[in-house]
Amino acid sequence: MPSAEIKSEIEKANQQAVDRMMEADPVWVGVGEARKVIPGMKSRMLLHAGPPIQWDRMSGPMRGAVVGAAIYEGWAENQTEAEKLAKSGHIEFVPNHHHDAVGPMAGIISASMPVYVVHDSKFGSNTYSNFNEGIGKVLRYGAYSEEVIKRLAWIRDTLAPALEATINAIKKDKNGVAMKPIITQALTMGDDCHNRYNAATSLFLKEITPYLIQTGLDRSTLVETYNFMAQNNFTLLNLGMASGKAITLAAHKIKYSTIVTVLTRNGTDAGIWVSGLENEWFTGPAPVPKGVWFPGFTEKDANPDLGDSAITETAGYGGFAMAAAPGIVSWVGGSVAYAIENTQKMYEITCAKNRNFIIPFLDFQGTPTGIDLRKVVRTGITPTINTGIAHKEAGIGQVGAGMVSFPLEIFKQALKSYAQKYGL
Amino acid sequence: MPSAEIKSEIEKANQQAVDRMMEADPVWVGVGEARKVIPGMKSRMLLHAGPPIQWDRMSGPMRGAVVGAAIYEGWAENQTEAEKLAKSGHIEFVPNHHHDAVGPMAGIISASMPVYVVHDSKFGSNTYSNFNEGIGKVLRYGAYSEEVIKRLAWIRDTLAPALEATINAIKKDKNGVAMKPIITQALTMGDDCHNRYNAATSLFLKEITPYLIQTGLDRSTLVETYNFMAQNNFTLLNLGMASGKAITLAAHKIKYSTIVTVLTRNGTDAGIWVSGLENEWFTGPAPVPKGVWFPGFTEKDANPDLGDSAITETAGYGGFAMAAAPGIVSWVGGSVAYAIENTQKMYEITCAKNRNFIIPFLDFQGTPTGIDLRKVVRTGITPTINTGIAHKEAGIGQVGAGMVSFPLEIFKQALKSYAQKYGL
Repeated sequence: MPSAEIKSEIEKANQQAVDRMMEADPVWVGVGEARKVIPGMKSRMLLHAGPPIQWDRMSGPMRGAVVGAAIYEGWAENQTEAEKLAKSGHIEFVPNHHHDAVGPMAGIISASMPVYVVHDSKFGSNTYSNFNEGIGKVLRYGAYSEEVIKRLAWIRDTLAPALEATINAIKKDKNGVAMKPIITQALTMGDDCHNRYNAATSLFLKEITPYLIQTGLDRSTLVETYNFMAQNNFTLLNLGMASGKAITLAAHKIKYSTIVTVLTRNGTDAGIWVSGLENEWFTGPAPVPKGVWFPGFTEKDANPDLGDSAITETAGYGGFAMAAAPGIVSWVGGSVAYAIENTQKMYEITCAKNRNFIIPFLDFQGTPTGIDLRKVVRTGITPTINTGIAHKEAGIGQVGAGMVSFPLEIFKQALKSYAQKYGL
Repeated sequence: MPSAEIKSEIEKANQQAVDRMMEADPVWVGVGEARKVIPGMKSRMLLHAGPPIQWDRMSGPMRGAVVGAAIYEGWAENQTEAEKLAKSGHIEFVPNHHHDAVGPMAGIISASMPVYVVHDSKFGSNTYSNFNEGIGKVLRYGAYSEEVIKRLAWIRDTLAPALEATINAIKKDKNGVAMKPIITQALTMGDDCHNRYNAATSLFLKEITPYLIQTGLDRSTLVETYNFMAQNNFTLLNLGMASGKAITLAAHKIKYSTIVTVLTRNGTDAGIWVSGLENEWFTGPAPVPKGVWFPGFTEKDANPDLGDSAITETAGYGGFAMAAAPGIVSWVGGSVAYAIENTQKMYEITCAKNRNFIIPFLDFQGTPTGIDLRKVVRTGITPTINTGIAHKEAGIGQVGAGMVSFPLEIFKQALKSYAQKYGL
């Protein structure tokens, strides 16, 4: 094909990809045990964030989360046993993205963990995410102490059944909880919908509370579950991520498209997928975030970046919508001017202004949406991600929050592969 | 006293006034029947918004609200009877501000209406406001049809007891619901806290819901009351206003102070109070707002401005914090640039940058707080208010929302009176 014709094919494919992203309609429809609801999930499997990785190359926080999951599942009594098991090769480690799932930070999903099911009512896909545990000493940041495991058990035994009863009550009225209107509103209420979910969490609670009350649950359970969700401003992160996965999945596997459909990190490697290159991973070393530190910690404690949460930026919010969330700079660092500048810069590497997600402060402009691999390589501007920061050793947890830029090298690799595949 | 000395007295007094405004700590502590909780409230009395006014000079929406209140109280069966009674002089009309109360738009509070009690835990005052009915055909905009009266009865019989039980449950844990943190957070979440209370309403619900659930109320009442509050983004307006009243009351009656402590309108007149001039009213014709119209209405339908809600601007938020709430321009008109410009302009007529209420988008600057009468007259810049717009005829209701500037003439009058009182 002559190069002008290929160029036109690419433009058409990318337009289709971003149109589908904006038309996707992620709706929270269910709660279930991972092994029962995630297709292909097996008992001795651990899903994890980022590109594929085995135990020997895993970073401290990823190992810590694996240890915690092994204890939680009853495969091991303690750290030593869990590590022995992990080394033995008797746990199958698979990226969340291979199962249309996403998880923040370590992103570990084990067989008996409850997960949210999000259904794209436009294109029919289902996507999944685990439940949010709060901040600080939590599994996803590599902590696995008794309190962490107890909280996970409470999530499984109390929170998940309460939310399952709630979503079942909601589904008698409507098809579920539409996530796009929540994200859209939250972006006009100071959230970036990656590292700040305060408004989204409030809006979600406002929508589900009448149904939660109507479940048969006793009042103390109602209050306990309500408070757990209300007191954690990251409650909506995981549903926001499953929504981002639904949105980007709608743009995935479109022939010729150079739209990036996955950006993710496992604490060792960062990796991407490109629509027209299907499930081929392009990876490079995960960068270390710069940010704001919790008391007692410094950048020396930071692990390289991890988590599937960059799916939010891939879907057109998160760091890309920072100009909508000036308050976030007190959490991730930087200035208000930087937040605006960052959003402005992301327009240079994307294909569209979002029709749903708007930024009042930029005169109601749509967020930059649909990262074009070609534009990243041409400009040298790589996606900026708002992220949490884990301690580099297992067992400690979150030590800060900050920002990180994806390594350019990965995009160059992907473009080379694209050129080969499409014969450029 | 030589003029340099007086100037220094004024500066000291104004500093004290704005310090007290910022130290005031309004806390929602109770719900009660107006006649029982508002000191000086009498059975045949109607409290109203704005400066003093009698029936003969009242505008359409104020008359409509009086008619509705008379029917609600059982003083009259219908409009004709209510108007006859109002004309007869057998209803005592008194401004809310004479009783430390505030009400949006017509602001009518009758003896058996439930009111919120807000207590300033720093300076000890109590302030009051009625309950919010939602938008459109509601009493405060002059509507008095059967649905309006029925809704008021439901508020009295169902919502108020539910909220009374809730606040009593809360008070077993703490001294009430602190309003300043809610307003502070809401201003970082896109609310101006006058004409947009979306975030504040959500934050309030998040705080009270666990207590609401724990009241002995049956589940259908819980859901009914929850939905009424959750589906009305103005639920927090009235508590926000009672908080503004507490804040400005803390700065009132300070000798020499030129800080404006009341800005209000009754649909006919606009009026102000000045701290050092105590309860002396300065009034002039109420201006007609410019704004955005509900379908089927135009500026020809607009009544001159009414309501005590400008207490929010007087307290340092509302229109003064417009730069925090760019989304609001789609509700009140104007552009994002105008919203920012307006906040910037208000710094020119105020004494302080608020220590609590900050605007992330202006690099976390405090809101302009403490209107200085002298600066208004010197610059010719008058306070800009975000407001709702009532139909000029009784019985119709809200027809839009917009912005309005207070007439300069009133401030000139007040400055003249100040010069006489303090012998300048």
